[in-house]
Order: sequence, then structure tokens, then C-alpha cells
Amino acid sequence: MVSDVAPLDTAGPDDLTFLDNPKYIDSFTRTGAGACLVHPDQAARAPAGVALLLTNDPYRAYAATAAVFYPPPVPVPGVSPHAVVDDAARLAGDARVEAGAVICAGAEIGAGSWICANAVIGRGVVIGEACIIGAGTTLSHCIIGNRVNLYPGVRVGQDGFGFAMGPQGHLKVPQLGRVIIGDDVEIGANCTIDRGAGPDTVIGAGSKIDNLVQIGHNVRLGRGCVFVAQSGVSGSTWVDDFVAVGGQAGITGHLHIGRGARVGAQSGVMKNVAPGATVGGSPAVPMVEWLRHTAFLTKMVRKPTTRE
Amino acid sequence: MVSDVAPLDTAGPDDLTFLDNPKYIDSFTRTGAGACLVHPDQAARAPAGVALLLTNDPYRAYAATAAVFYPPPVPVPGVSPHAVVDDAARLAGDARVEAGAVICAGAEIGAGSWICANAVIGRGVVIGEACIIGAGTTLSHCIIGNRVNLYPGVRVGQDGFGFAMGPQGHLKVPQLGRVIIGDDVEIGANCTIDRGAGPDTVIGAGSKIDNLVQIGHNVRLGRGCVFVAQSGVSGSTWVDDFVAVGGQAGITGHLHIGRGARVGAQSGVMKNVAPGATVGGSPAVPMVEWLRHTAFLTKMVRKPTTRE
Amino acid sequence: MVSDVAPLDTAGPDDLTFLDNPKYIDSFTRTGAGACLVHPDQAARAPAGVALLLTNDPYRAYAATAAVFYPPPVPVPGVSPHAVVDDAARLAGDARVEAGAVICAGAEIGAGSWICANAVIGRGVVIGEACIIGAGTTLSHCIIGNRVNLYPGVRVGQDGFGFAMGPQGHLKVPQLGRVIIGDDVEIGANCTIDRGAGPDTVIGAGSKIDNLVQIGHNVRLGRGCVFVAQSGVSGSTWVDDFVAVGGQAGITGHLHIGRGARVGAQSGVMKNVAPGATVGGSPAVPMVEWLRHTAFLTKMVRKPTTRE
Repeated sequence: MVSDVAPLDTAGPDDLTFLDNPKYIDSFTRTGAGACLVHPDQAARAPAGVALLLTNDPYRAYAATAAVFYPPPVPVPGVSPHAVVDDAARLAGDARVEAGAVICAGAEIGAGSWICANAVIGRGVVIGEACIIGAGTTLSHCIIGNRVNLYPGVRVGQDGFGFAMGPQGHLKVPQLGRVIIGDDVEIGANCTIDRGAGPDTVIGAGSKIDNLVQIGHNVRLGRGCVFVAQSGVSGSTWVDDFVAVGGQAGITGHLHIGRGARVGAQSGVMKNVAPGATVGGSPAVPMVEWLRHTAFLTKMVRKPTTRE
Repeated sequence: MVSDVAPLDTAGPDDLTFLDNPKYIDSFTRTGAGACLVHPDQAARAPAGVALLLTNDPYRAYAATAAVFYPPPVPVPGVSPHAVVDDAARLAGDARVEAGAVICAGAEIGAGSWICANAVIGRGVVIGEACIIGAGTTLSHCIIGNRVNLYPGVRVGQDGFGFAMGPQGHLKVPQLGRVIIGDDVEIGANCTIDRGAGPDTVIGAGSKIDNLVQIGHNVRLGRGCVFVAQSGVSGSTWVDDFVAVGGQAGITGHLHIGRGARVGAQSGVMKNVAPGATVGGSPAVPMVEWLRHTAFLTKMVRKPTTRE
Repeated sequence: MVSDVAPLDTAGPDDLTFLDNPKYIDSFTRTGAGACLVHPDQAARAPAGVALLLTNDPYRAYAATAAVFYPPPVPVPGVSPHAVVDDAARLAGDARVEAGAVICAGAEIGAGSWICANAVIGRGVVIGEACIIGAGTTLSHCIIGNRVNLYPGVRVGQDGFGFAMGPQGHLKVPQLGRVIIGDDVEIGANCTIDRGAGPDTVIGAGSKIDNLVQIGHNVRLGRGCVFVAQSGVSGSTWVDDFVAVGGQAGITGHLHIGRGARVGAQSGVMKNVAPGATVGGSPAVPMVEWLRHTAFLTKMVRKPTTRE
């Protein structure tokens, strides 16, 4: 019987823990946990007295188990008297709207959705069911699905960066599209998702975006994409389903990134990427080639006398 | 007669569209638009029935045309009863101040300017005419020109990163300058523009800054500069007129970037850049040289056996 | 007798100035300042009539002197009638809470702390004495020490980026930890500091973080760390005391960065870094080696004919 979950280092006899990253095998061998989710290959290293729960994917099993102990918060329905809700907005009866939130005319808030303090929901914005719109987040020109979680400070639907550049001055191009966000999307703190210029910007269902990520106008992300913190995509690039992009990586505009491709951290993608490919470096090349670049440079500079 | 503008792919017989990027020539050959702005060199590929409007700069022509159909929004004047405006602030009679905005003592808001919901205008901040200050944006220690558009979540005028570092602790250097923003500037969502340490930080007229850009203290941008998303400039660097900086590029402090220089995406500028020069890579070198670096590495690792 | 501080270029006979960066020696030779803090090595270049104040660390001496002329602002105590403070929050009598701030149940605000306009202090957040929480900043799941300065738009305590990824969908891992921020920390505008997944995220006392920096879940920063703008640290990395990280640099997850290490701007750290080491490049290598990479490439491409 366990009553809580805890990290390997601090878990006690009443706690369930997990070993996923082999870097933490030492902590595993010393854990005081009552039970541990672990891959069969690592089970032999377990200390005595720990009930082992064998699984091929301990992290996923932990996620499912921890969610039993810590279910997602359910908002207490109600509109704060300190919120400002336009008469022409439509709120589901069990929505929650906190103090300082501003909800403009024509906005719609679905059942069980939670608008946190000081968020701003612009004119005509549509939010589905069971969403969380973080504190201080601002939305305009967008349609949001169900179970979407926007973290604090996210900016959705402002104009994209569209200017006809020229020495006589940069002329603004009117931005006319929207942002469409699918079900089960999470977007991290202080991310920026611009409205489309003409077509819409689209974030596919189940995509997960970390903090401080930039998504330019007209970008289309497929389903289940993953963007790690501080990465960005320039305008009009299409990213297919289940693409994973590392931290601080950038993808230039008007490209196509194939299904399941992987983009290494800090890499700079300037060409299309084939489905399933893994790329790295700036400019990005196939990952195996980029690793050879680095190995080659290392070899050259560590034996400088052999080069002349 | 056209009644709207639309992208190549979705335009119908009543719509005006445009072809600018040659990547979209296929969409051009299939467009159902009634009229299309296009460069003379591409006109021959047009499908039958499209009225062609020939121009050497289709994107600029589209910008001007689209602005006729979609003029910039004009705010409905008035101060929301849910805004908080200090008695010692001065607002033009036709300014608009939305719910949740906070305007402090000594602030001045010019004619036709629009302060969006939950923005904070600090003590003594001066905002010119026809500006838009986005939702949740915060300003202090700054003077802002006319027709300036600050997107949601922009931070202007907070202290710069000034510390005398040392093992006995990092000692804060008082930040005493302001931010001066010229006319017709746009600053993207969640950008950060720090006040000067002693002199002011200056953003020259007509400069356009994309989302999540960092401008350090004492930086001076000239007129018409362009900074793409997630780029940054460290303190005390001077950037002359019409410099263009790519996405995720960085420029270190105390440099001079000459008029019209271009800085490639993700590059890292650590030396002065001459007027008109184009640089790339990290550390940045002349673009042509950086392209050779990449070509050289590619050649080396693709024929590893010839290297030993 | 001097009555103010000013930069070299604009200082007059009643002003104190300083010379720290040798780049500004020309300005020094022309300064009209009444007095100047300067290193003995540069004193000979002073113009006539300037009283020289010799010091081995002119920038630190300037910081201390300027703070006499411009002491940190002290908030006027009081709670704005336009703030929303839950009855179950505890505020020190001399705290300042500005208009639009929202303070939730169970929060504690220490003596002399200043909650700026439209900030959101979440349930149970504890803030020490003499802190400044910037305009529009949002806090949850965190404990904050004394004399902490969070700039506008900082996000502290939201969920970290924890998902068990998989083609059947990415499963959220409940985030259960807090953020612990030590005394005398400054965190720049629009930074994001995620709560721990199981353990806490920790920012050590005296650390200084510039704008738009990302700190992932479970990261531990030691004392006196410095992170320049747009840098980031991925989850579960431990950074020891007095580590300095350059602008736009990234450190991947589950690493250990030794005491006093230095990470160059834009570099990408993918391995542990030894105490006192200096690294650069992406992937990061010892700085001296990275400089050789660059020198080698430069040599190769500038003499292309000698390579075949």
C-alpha cells in the first residue's frame, strides 16, 4: 500500500517512485521507497524491500499513477465580482472567471473552463471545454479547442510580423487570419503565437509547447508536436504530426518539416526536413553529419602540428 | 471589381491576391482569384481569367491594397469605469482606456491612443498620438512617439542588467536612463526593452521588432531597423539605420553595427560590423565566409577517407 | 563637491563619472566631469581639471556611489482600493499593493514588500521582506526570500514541461514541487521559472538573471549565479555557485555545472562542466578549443586552393 509519489532520493516506505533516466541508477540503488516503477533491465539493481513494478515505460507509468494521486485541478465555478465580463460574452454556467480577468464582447467560454486572474479574452474569442487560461494571458483572434492549457503570460492572436520592407519605410501588411488551437494542447509561459496573415495559424491537437516559444503567422503544426523552450518557427512553415524540436532551435519560414522529424537543440533549420529525419547544427544537416563536423574539428585542433 | 483580399489558395473571383515568394508559383498557376498582383517576370504563368496587376514589388502593393480593405482599427474613445486612472495623469479627450488598465500619476496619453485591457502605464510615462499599447503590456521610464504599436506583454523601461560582479556578491548599479521610442515603431509580443543605465535606450523611428526580442540598456537603434523574433542586443551597442537582424541572432555589448548591415539568423555578432555588410555564423563572420565554413565541413566529413 | 552621477560623455563639472571599459578611453580623455572613478593604469589619460578617484574596480565603486545619489525606491505602504486581496492572505502592515494586483488565499507578503500593478500572487505563495514584484508578474507554488526583485512579466511556479511522450499521445506528468528563491535574487522581465516536478526548483541567494531566461523544473542554481538574457537551463540540471552563463546560451537537462564555471554566449552545453572551466560553442567545448575551431575554419576557407 502506497499513499503518495516521490522522487527516488526522498521517497519513503509509503511512497511510489520511478527510475527512468539511467543517470539516476545510484539513487535507485539507495532509494527508501516502498515501491518503484522500473524497466526489467534495471530491476536487478534494486535495494532490498522495494516492491518493483516492472514496465517498459516507467515514465509513462509514473505519469498515469501520479495523476491518480494528483488529479488535474477542477475549477470552482463562478465569476469573480472583480472580473469584467461584457454583456455580449457567453459563459458556460460552470466556468470559472477570476478577479481582474477581462472578457470582451462576443467571446465564448465553454463548460468547466477556467479563466485565471488578469487574463484578457478578446472580442469573439472562442474557448472550448475544460480549458485553463493562465494568469495574465491575453487572447485575440483565436478559436481554442477542449482541454487546452495556456500557461501564464501566453500571447495568442496578435498580428504577425508582416511588413513590406523598403528604404522608404516598412509598410505594414494587414493581418487577417486567426489562430486555431486543437484539443489537448499545452502552451508554456510567455509563448507567442501570432494570428495568420491571410490563412490561419494552426496548432494541432495534442501538441505540447514549452516556455518562451515563438510561432509565426501562418505556421501549421500537426498533431502531437513537441517544442522545447525558446525554440521558434518563422512564418508559413508547415510542421507535420509528431515533430519534436529541441530547445533554442529555430526553423525559418516557408519550409515543410516531415512527419516525425526531430530537430536538435539550438539547430537552425533552413531547408525542408524529410519525414523521420533527425537534424542538428546551424545550418542544420543530418544529425550524423553534424556530429562528424564536431568530431572533425576536434581532431583538427587537437593535433594542430599535423595540419601544416 | 474585387471586394476582398485573400491568399492564392483560397481566393475566389471577387478577391484580389498576390504572388511574391516564387515558392508559391504552383498555387499561382491554380489560383481562382479575380485579380492578382504579380511581378512581370511571373505573369506568363497566370491561369486564364485572372486580371493581372503588374508591379515590381507585389508584396508592397498588396500591403497598400489590403490596408484599403482593412484599415487599421480606430479606437472608440472613452475610459472604462473598470480602468484605474490617477488624477494626476493627463489623457487626450479621444483616448481609449480599457478595463483593468492602470495609469499612474504624471503619465500623458496622446490623442487617439488606445490603452488595452490590463496594461500598466507607469509614473510620468509619455505616450504620443495614435498609439496602441497592448493588453497586459507594462511601461515605465519611457517616452513614446506617435503611431507606435506595442503588442501584448511588452516590457519597456524596467532596470537594465547592471551589476558590478564579484565573489563578495553582485552589486546593483542604479539604472537612471529612460527608453525613447520614435514614431511608427512596432514592438512584438513579450519583448523586453530596458531603460538606460545612464544615457537612454533609443528605438529609432520606423523600426519593427518581432516577438520575444531583448534590447539591453543604452542600446541605440537607428531608423527603420528590423529585428526578427527571439533576437537580442546586449547593452550599449549602437545599431545604425536600416540594419536587419535575423531570428535568434545575438549582438554582444559595446559594438557598432553600420548602416544597412544584415545579420543572419542565429548568428552571434562579437565584433563591429561595417555598413552594408552581411554576416553569419557564431561567432559571426562575413556571410560568404560562413557559407564556405559549412561547405568545407560538409566536404570533409562526406569523404572522411581522404583526410588521413 | 559633486551633486550627481553621469556618463563620461555628458557629465559636467558637478558630476561624478567613471571609466571601466577601455573602449571608452576616448570619451574619458574628453570628459567634462568634475570627478572620475578610474583605475590607476588609466589615470594618465585624464583631461585637466578632473578630480581622479583611483580604484582597482571603478565599476563597483561607481555602483556604490551611484546608490548614494539614487537609493533603491522605498514603497509607500498601503493597499490600493483597486487591488483584490483575499481575506485569507496575510500582509505586513507596511507592504504596498497597487491597483489591479490580485492576492489569493494563504499568500503571505513580508514587511516592506511592494506588489506592483496587475501582479498575481497565487494561493499560498510566501514573499519575504523588502521584495519588489513587478507589474503584471504572476507567481504560484513558490517561496521567495528577502530583497528579491522580480521584474515585470516574470512567471514563477507554473508547471514544468513534463510529458511522457509517445505516439499514442503525450501524457502529462503531474508537477508537484515548488520554486524556492533565495535572498537578494533579481529575475529579469518576462523570465519563466517552472515549479519542480517532484523536488523543488531552486534559485540560490544573490543570483542575478537577465530578461527572457528560461529555468526548467528541478533546476538548482547555487549562490551568485549570473544568467544573461535569453539563456536557458533544461530540467534537473544543477548549477553550482557563481556560475556565469552568457546570452542565448543553453544548458541541457540532467547535467552538473561546477562552481565558478563560465559558459560563453550562444553556446550549447550538453555535458557536465568542471568547476572553474570556461566553455564555448555548440556543442560546447573548452573555450580555447572553440576559438581554435573558428581559427581553423577561417584559415581553411581563406586559402581554398591549398586544400585540394
